[in-house]
Amino acid sequence: MRNILVIGSGKSTSYLIQYFLERAEREDLFLTVGDLNVKNAEKLLNGHPRSKAITLDIFNQESREKAIKASDIVVSMLPARFHIEAAKDCLKLGKPMVTASYVSKEMQALDEEAKSKGLVFMNEIGVDPGIDHMSAMRVIDEIRDKGGNIILFESFCGGLVAPESDNNLWNYKFTWNPRNVVVAGQGGAAKFLQEGTYKYIPYNRLFRRTEFLEIDGYGRFEAYANRDSLKYQSVYGLDDVKTLYRGTMRRVGFSRAWNMFVQLGMTDDSYTIDDSENMSYRDFVNAFLPYSPTDSVELKFRHQLKIDQDDIVWDKLEELDIFSPTKMVGLKRATPAQILQKILMDKWTLDQEDKDMLVMYHKFGYELDGKKHQIDSTMVCIGEDQTYTAMAKTVGLPVAIATLSILNGKITTPGVQIPIRKEVYSPILKELETHNIVFKDKVVPYLGYNSLNI
Amino acid sequence: MRNILVIGSGKSTSYLIQYFLERAEREDLFLTVGDLNVKNAEKLLNGHPRSKAITLDIFNQESREKAIKASDIVVSMLPARFHIEAAKDCLKLGKPMVTASYVSKEMQALDEEAKSKGLVFMNEIGVDPGIDHMSAMRVIDEIRDKGGNIILFESFCGGLVAPESDNNLWNYKFTWNPRNVVVAGQGGAAKFLQEGTYKYIPYNRLFRRTEFLEIDGYGRFEAYANRDSLKYQSVYGLDDVKTLYRGTMRRVGFSRAWNMFVQLGMTDDSYTIDDSENMSYRDFVNAFLPYSPTDSVELKFRHQLKIDQDDIVWDKLEELDIFSPTKMVGLKRATPAQILQKILMDKWTLDQEDKDMLVMYHKFGYELDGKKHQIDSTMVCIGEDQTYTAMAKTVGLPVAIATLSILNGKITTPGVQIPIRKEVYSPILKELETHNIVFKDKVVPYLGYNSLNI
Repeated sequence: MRNILVIGSGKSTSYLIQYFLERAEREDLFLTVGDLNVKNAEKLLNGHPRSKAITLDIFNQESREKAIKASDIVVSMLPARFHIEAAKDCLKLGKPMVTASYVSKEMQALDEEAKSKGLVFMNEIGVDPGIDHMSAMRVIDEIRDKGGNIILFESFCGGLVAPESDNNLWNYKFTWNPRNVVVAGQGGAAKFLQEGTYKYIPYNRLFRRTEFLEIDGYGRFEAYANRDSLKYQSVYGLDDVKTLYRGTMRRVGFSRAWNMFVQLGMTDDSYTIDDSENMSYRDFVNAFLPYSPTDSVELKFRHQLKIDQDDIVWDKLEELDIFSPTKMVGLKRATPAQILQKILMDKWTLDQEDKDMLVMYHKFGYELDGKKHQIDSTMVCIGEDQTYTAMAKTVGLPVAIATLSILNGKITTPGVQIPIRKEVYSPILKELETHNIVFKDKVVPYLGYNSLNI
Repeated sequence: MRNILVIGSGKSTSYLIQYFLERAEREDLFLTVGDLNVKNAEKLLNGHPRSKAITLDIFNQESREKAIKASDIVVSMLPARFHIEAAKDCLKLGKPMVTASYVSKEMQALDEEAKSKGLVFMNEIGVDPGIDHMSAMRVIDEIRDKGGNIILFESFCGGLVAPESDNNLWNYKFTWNPRNVVVAGQGGAAKFLQEGTYKYIPYNRLFRRTEFLEIDGYGRFEAYANRDSLKYQSVYGLDDVKTLYRGTMRRVGFSRAWNMFVQLGMTDDSYTIDDSENMSYRDFVNAFLPYSPTDSVELKFRHQLKIDQDDIVWDKLEELDIFSPTKMVGLKRATPAQILQKILMDKWTLDQEDKDMLVMYHKFGYELDGKKHQIDSTMVCIGEDQTYTAMAKTVGLPVAIATLSILNGKITTPGVQIPIRKEVYSPILKELETHNIVFKDKVVPYLGYNSLNI
């Protein structure tokens, strides 16, 4: 029997655990799920005979080492900053490891020792990062195999609400950590490459420089630039690419409305408001507007941002009840971002019956035989319910598949790595298709960003 | 003979040195000016028999201690971060000290020991901070002495070009550290109090929420909020004040034009541009605009910021040659802020014949006998030439006067302090008047920010 230890049993682990349990008999697996609180783990394991839930404090060395020692492979589904202690134990105890998180400096530092011990340390094998790497490298390698030269790569991903549950004016609900959505884009200018030129967008322009995307059967989306578009340039072998852009997808119109919060400073996370607890939502909004007691908060808001009386963005604001004088913030010494998050969570939390949706869109431009070509590759995944979400599916399944592949000796190259080699991504993408996570490639005319191309 | 040691002989020391030399005979002073490079010191001392320039490296403990030991009082005119070593020596060797800089945490930590040794450590006694403290506290104390209760305090200061030398469309030239001008307002939201309500302005709105000010004989100005409006609330005894605002003064129209740079991200100092050295000014601007080779940089700029064809802000841009394809940045791996500073220095550097101007504007609102009153107090100082600038005068003279007052036993209260007590500011303000640094008080109707008051 092979022992799999999963550390953490949060929202992203439902499909992961299901995958192992469904194969436990056939593959002779025993699944141990460790968490500080075993409640969710027990619910997900549902008494399966080849499983158990254990209390595990990642900061308690003894309990951590004991659990890792008893396993053949370790999957860490904790927040990224908590992986490193488990990773060091895995090295010491000779266990391979899988995470869905970005490779931290501390993790990268373990590479040499992992290699010398023949251990696979697979990271960034969730959805973003994860499926984005694998699906992009599949097409990039295909283009290269036929002699093409990549000149453009753009990649977009978004966690959204499914069309059947999309019933607010923002066409958006929180499907993942709301905080990341509120502070998205902060901390520095977005940098990317367009037709050989570096371009920079400051935070306050980010949501006004969006790009449209269309997915057959799902309509139009928009995307704003990520800060880190150039992060994988060398890793993907795209040092000579002319256009390189990564972005976050929303439904059309979200960004223009979101920009109102950005402009007024309501997404700021760098300072706290002293008396935030006793503020109404209306007081909160008013803190970002000039003093003028004879003018309404509404008029001051419209005037500051020059919002026409019939502009749809106004209805989006009203839908959030943001001008309510009776709804109270109720958070002590909170930052503007924390307060805004609270206001949004009133309206943007998924209902019990709601389904989420994960969308991904890649554009590949390349030159072959003196001509320019483009392939657009898209994927849409819709969740089943509030436990079996598209987010949990697209994060958890690649992790699960990779874990079993390592156990079964199908992924053997040791070291700290991400899934960009064909022998890794190819079988995983194939298996993901059987779970209905499918990329559709479409040949389109090459456009790029140079309107002279049209 | 009393020995004064001035450390540093930069731009702000001309009037300071002149003040001591003019009184050297009468007051029996000997002035030693220490700097890494004695050239400017020698020029300013001009062979005066009661003076000498010495080479002094603030980081060389031996030379520093030797110079301080030989002095009766030490004036540090170095950048604020360099004071602390000299201050510690002063404590050890029992010498009083004067600086024009904000009290750092390290400086504040010396308070107790300075008190126990009976040493005056006077700080923030330049212009801003300095004259602002003294001139504000004079009126605040006057109002309190007659039983008034302060309900509003606003304070504005600006270093500008004198009207007779004001010959560009921005009505602005650099009269102090250009870098501080380019990055002004960055690093967090501006926070202030208006009619009892905390207000916050994020960086990207800072230059669009200005206030107008008028000074008799000098026309209109505008001001944008400082980050630290509440810094001296308790120090000034204004804990119950309803409105508290500090701002930076510019000529009307500056901020609206400056906002273009802010909006496009051209003032960002948080990242470097790889190939900045070989960029033209035009390339630099283009880095913040979408890619579109069939459209001109000019049209993209106008479109992004919605600038009408006849808007004066456009002429302000053209005056800077910012669209030049031939003028080169020539700075290696520079930040956008560094590049913008270079472009601006081409046009905003004071000419040999130019004069600078220092303006200060306080508003005091108070209640007395059930009525609301307001006093506006203004000061304008115009420089003589490029050495004897208004900036050097308003920074250097209060430092010099305070230094002599300490030497002469007129300021005796020991400890790390700023000039907010009447026995300190009163004689200094009186003497500044003899140097034509004069505040004009004007009784005006109380307006505050509540339009119901009108």
